[in-house]
Amino acid sequence: MRVDVFFTAREAAPGDVAGRVVAVIDVLRASSCIAAALANGARAIFPGETTEAVLTRARAFDRGEVRLAGERRMRKIEGFDLGNSPLEFTRDAVEGRTVLMTTTNGTAAFGATQGAREVYVAAYVNFSPVAEVLRRALRAGADVAIVCAGQDGQFALEDAACAGRLVQHVTRRLAPVAMNDGALAAAQLHRKFGGDVWELFETSRHGQALAEAGFAADLVACATMDAYPVVPAYADRQITRLGPPVEA
Amino acid sequence: MRVDVFFTAREAAPGDVAGRVVAVIDVLRASSCIAAALANGARAIFPGETTEAVLTRARAFDRGEVRLAGERRMRKIEGFDLGNSPLEFTRDAVEGRTVLMTTTNGTAAFGATQGAREVYVAAYVNFSPVAEVLRRALRAGADVAIVCAGQDGQFALEDAACAGRLVQHVTRRLAPVAMNDGALAAAQLHRKFGGDVWELFETSRHGQALAEAGFAADLVACATMDAYPVVPAYADRQITRLGPPVEA
Repeated sequence: MRVDVFFTAREAAPGDVAGRVVAVIDVLRASSCIAAALANGARAIFPGETTEAVLTRARAFDRGEVRLAGERRMRKIEGFDLGNSPLEFTRDAVEGRTVLMTTTNGTAAFGATQGAREVYVAAYVNFSPVAEVLRRALRAGADVAIVCAGQDGQFALEDAACAGRLVQHVTRRLAPVAMNDGALAAAQLHRKFGGDVWELFETSRHGQALAEAGFAADLVACATMDAYPVVPAYADRQITRLGPPVEA
Repeated sequence: MRVDVFFTAREAAPGDVAGRVVAVIDVLRASSCIAAALANGARAIFPGETTEAVLTRARAFDRGEVRLAGERRMRKIEGFDLGNSPLEFTRDAVEGRTVLMTTTNGTAAFGATQGAREVYVAAYVNFSPVAEVLRRALRAGADVAIVCAGQDGQFALEDAACAGRLVQHVTRRLAPVAMNDGALAAAQLHRKFGGDVWELFETSRHGQALAEAGFAADLVACATMDAYPVVPAYADRQITRLGPPVEA
């Protein structure tokens, strides 16, 4: 029974995720978009590492069945339907459809989860239900690994703080749970920076960059705790909603 | 004028160190050994990534001129003169000699410093003189990058806290200095965990592993602030002492 946190996908070695229950975090903004899409009735999301991977997969669908989504340097990819803003993943846009998605940091993180027993996608917008799933797994004896997407392969404060909040919730009132240094540090960073998520985004470099690029509304959306209370589960290269279908 | 912290060598992209003044940190124990060796009169230290690299370089010297040093899984490499314990790098052992050294995490970190303007080696045992050199560089307009060796490519709390202490000292009473998320986080981790270095080592996974393996005395040595107050400078693949030679 242990909880480890990895601040970048490259930190997580195969042995760190094999057989474990894993949460992938890319608060700004891929994880938040995935939760928004599933909460608004998307059938599934396929994360792809490249634009080409998304376009190739799109050929397997009728055009009306899918939405192409993704960003490069924060902006929507040319010719795609949606960017990487959770506010774009409305019911009108995604209900009943499959979302094919590529983002700079978020989708690459799934590559680090090979061999995991279960993989979930976490953000502030779906914090509580994912925390509950992880907590139950831990109490049932599973080891948990939390993999932050980070920013261009580097530590990102908002992902670290969200990971620390998960560590805190998942281990609360349990017998001492073994943790790696990353989990200890993340919990502390949550206590210092994570109390007010909006302030956290104003502090983090990626939050600042998004605000400067005109995405302040996205920051508000991504800071809204449990706005999209779904548990996105990743398996067989697709993400679907755990549990009963969304009510219309 | 900025200070960035990278928690693993792989986090630091070439553009993050190019033209900068860089500090490499591997508190447990390579940085501490390097400071001990130079304080005790070693001529130079050659960090090598592998045992083979050390043995190959040794051929360029008379056997009496060099000391072979290094560890794998915390233990001295078979046939080498010294392990990775700062207490082994005594004046008797190293004075006037060149140390050829390989360690699991420490020496690899130098590979991430290509293109840097200057590279120094920092630990708690030589904290103040290195902090002063970095602070002067920053005040003179340089950008500073602090690269933590980490543990097997992963975040290590003791390196992060030492980096945070550097950030705090280097930026004190200066006009706001730009920082990446790593530097913000490191400074906070220093404030939380770094006040008592011995306690920090008891908390960190690598510190615990060393204590369990019988290296508690090394932890005491590595926790002793400014015990070896030298500035190790890395250039042309060797580390020498900045400033006047050690007095006998």
